[in-house]
Amino acid sequence: MAARELDPQERLDWLRLARTETVGPVTFYAMLRRFGSARAALEALPRLSNSRARPAPAMSRGDAEAELAALRRLGAQLVCWGEPHYPATLAAVEDGPPVLTVLGDPGLLQMPMVAVVGARNASANGRRLAGELAAGLGEAGIIVVSGMARGIDAAAHLGALDTGSVAVVAGGADVVYPPENRGLYDALAERGAVVAELPLGTEPQARHFPRRNRIISGMARGVVVVEAAAKSGSLITARFALEQGREVFAVPGSPLDPRSRGCNDLLRNGATLTETAADILAQLGPFLQSEMPPRRTPERNLPPRLPVAAMAPSPPPASRIPQDAALELLVEKLSPTPVAVDELVRQCHLSAASIATLLLELELAGRIERHPGNLVSLR
Amino acid sequence: MAARELDPQERLDWLRLARTETVGPVTFYAMLRRFGSARAALEALPRLSNSRARPAPAMSRGDAEAELAALRRLGAQLVCWGEPHYPATLAAVEDGPPVLTVLGDPGLLQMPMVAVVGARNASANGRRLAGELAAGLGEAGIIVVSGMARGIDAAAHLGALDTGSVAVVAGGADVVYPPENRGLYDALAERGAVVAELPLGTEPQARHFPRRNRIISGMARGVVVVEAAAKSGSLITARFALEQGREVFAVPGSPLDPRSRGCNDLLRNGATLTETAADILAQLGPFLQSEMPPRRTPERNLPPRLPVAAMAPSPPPASRIPQDAALELLVEKLSPTPVAVDELVRQCHLSAASIATLLLELELAGRIERHPGNLVSLR
Repeated sequence: MAARELDPQERLDWLRLARTETVGPVTFYAMLRRFGSARAALEALPRLSNSRARPAPAMSRGDAEAELAALRRLGAQLVCWGEPHYPATLAAVEDGPPVLTVLGDPGLLQMPMVAVVGARNASANGRRLAGELAAGLGEAGIIVVSGMARGIDAAAHLGALDTGSVAVVAGGADVVYPPENRGLYDALAERGAVVAELPLGTEPQARHFPRRNRIISGMARGVVVVEAAAKSGSLITARFALEQGREVFAVPGSPLDPRSRGCNDLLRNGATLTETAADILAQLGPFLQSEMPPRRTPERNLPPRLPVAAMAPSPPPASRIPQDAALELLVEKLSPTPVAVDELVRQCHLSAASIATLLLELELAGRIERHPGNLVSLR
Repeated sequence: MAARELDPQERLDWLRLARTETVGPVTFYAMLRRFGSARAALEALPRLSNSRARPAPAMSRGDAEAELAALRRLGAQLVCWGEPHYPATLAAVEDGPPVLTVLGDPGLLQMPMVAVVGARNASANGRRLAGELAAGLGEAGIIVVSGMARGIDAAAHLGALDTGSVAVVAGGADVVYPPENRGLYDALAERGAVVAELPLGTEPQARHFPRRNRIISGMARGVVVVEAAAKSGSLITARFALEQGREVFAVPGSPLDPRSRGCNDLLRNGATLTETAADILAQLGPFLQSEMPPRRTPERNLPPRLPVAAMAPSPPPASRIPQDAALELLVEKLSPTPVAVDELVRQCHLSAASIATLLLELELAGRIERHPGNLVSLR
């Protein structure tokens, strides 16, 4: 089945489940697989509890309707995982957002994207390079995605404004941050797109930025870093890119300029040296020319790296040992250090389906955290 | 046998043979292998001729004595291949000079060396980096070798003046080029070393520089390029370094600076990204700590990549076909495109020893050119 739009009722259910506290992206997809639909997952929520694990209540229908109405007033829209406008590359990321808020042209999200990111305190040369790289990518039909920060991000957006520029913001899609980028924000809303994972009105906080960065790299076929100090946010985006199997590009710079430290480190670790857009296009060529594989429905093709056993919806398992004892056993095996779910299946001598159900309960109770690679840890 | 000094008579013979027109380094070593000593090779020279191949006369004894006397007056000395002061790494290069003129402290040539080279029109930052890298290498006990050119070379020499700095010049060891580096030259002659392949008084010409560059890379364990435009001389040194199996290091720079183009290209092609001397030391660590293998006498351990059959001196072969016909046959197989000597042996159906003798005649007549990898071509 090709990608399809959700009907209004499904969309409302997706939003309610996605906005439920303790339901992060990985939990969201796990519940969708487990219960077959967002509606069924919402209905199951109150039942998914025992003495130790008590889930937070779902977002109310009224709050969800209010958010959708606010989006309509703003001229924005909700794009759900698996819908035609949801970026194909982001759909393949294990913890990609179940719902995105998109202000501007959501059609841009269907085209091949490359991220251009970098230092906020960029040099004049760095800004110029970012703008030139973005324009060069744009000429080749690539949409440029960045984070709408000061410096490199802003220069990259401006360079690609005529060809396609997408900002992924850390707060709500209606919150302009930093305020000085009001003009850029308006231009992007008008001629590009502004994308957010979090609800309208959310003020961006420090903890939001790394999560935002994973969306930038997740949407892109490759991430280009232009000027970045050691240990800067751009390097977090580059790390996500590597984890997500994206190409990483870095612009070299003088060892005497601290703003080149991060880029030179990336180059030392295997990033592709980038002087012009041609360097990026040469490396990405095969990826850009090939169409993305046809997408299937969320129920059939949820993000990768999940055990095959968990892919097909199945009835709750009939455990051979009582649920409470099993939960106890499982919690005993968990620690703050992430462990593979497969390993837990082996060590607990329970079926993969039983472990999946127990983990879901613990997730919903906010007691465990999911990590890429099908790993879990105790919070 | 350990490295030993030549006696005065041998030294004179080496100089006469090395300074004979049409006797390049590869021919020199081939004759030494073929005839057992420079003296025997000089005696054989007049005989090595036929109607087609007429060798140039050897340097006269008087001219050689005059050159040695001039060296003594200058305070310089002749260092021959295989002598204790001849750099061990250069001795392993197939076309390393049979004789070097050394002004200053020849003891420096026995210590581990790293080349720091780069653009003549270097930026202030490039000069600063070259000086810092050279000083950092010096602190680690590494001798810095460069080409005494303007810009990066001069800055590298200055940075290592207190710890050990060696200039390899393209002309004679007594010719200061460029003239503005007179002060640096005097300091190197006093506290470092100035090394030349060509006789005293030789004014450097364009064609001398690539040959000089092979000595710089040949003496060094690694070559560091600091600022180099595309297609510049520093890249020739880097290419020699790769051919000689040396590590290549490059300092990254902004794509907006044309003086970084060459370095960034080297990085794109696998050079080690270098910001500080620590980057070089980390990569060269194993090479620097290990002693070079003990050297054997020239007769037993001439430069590598020569066929084993040619290693042991042997009497002139008794060809099954007349010498003239054989020479004709061989010349027929040759072209301006280099071909492997092994291939010629196969194609001519002659012994390796016969081919070696015929090639020697052609070399001495200036009709063929030797290339690394035991290749020859018609001039």
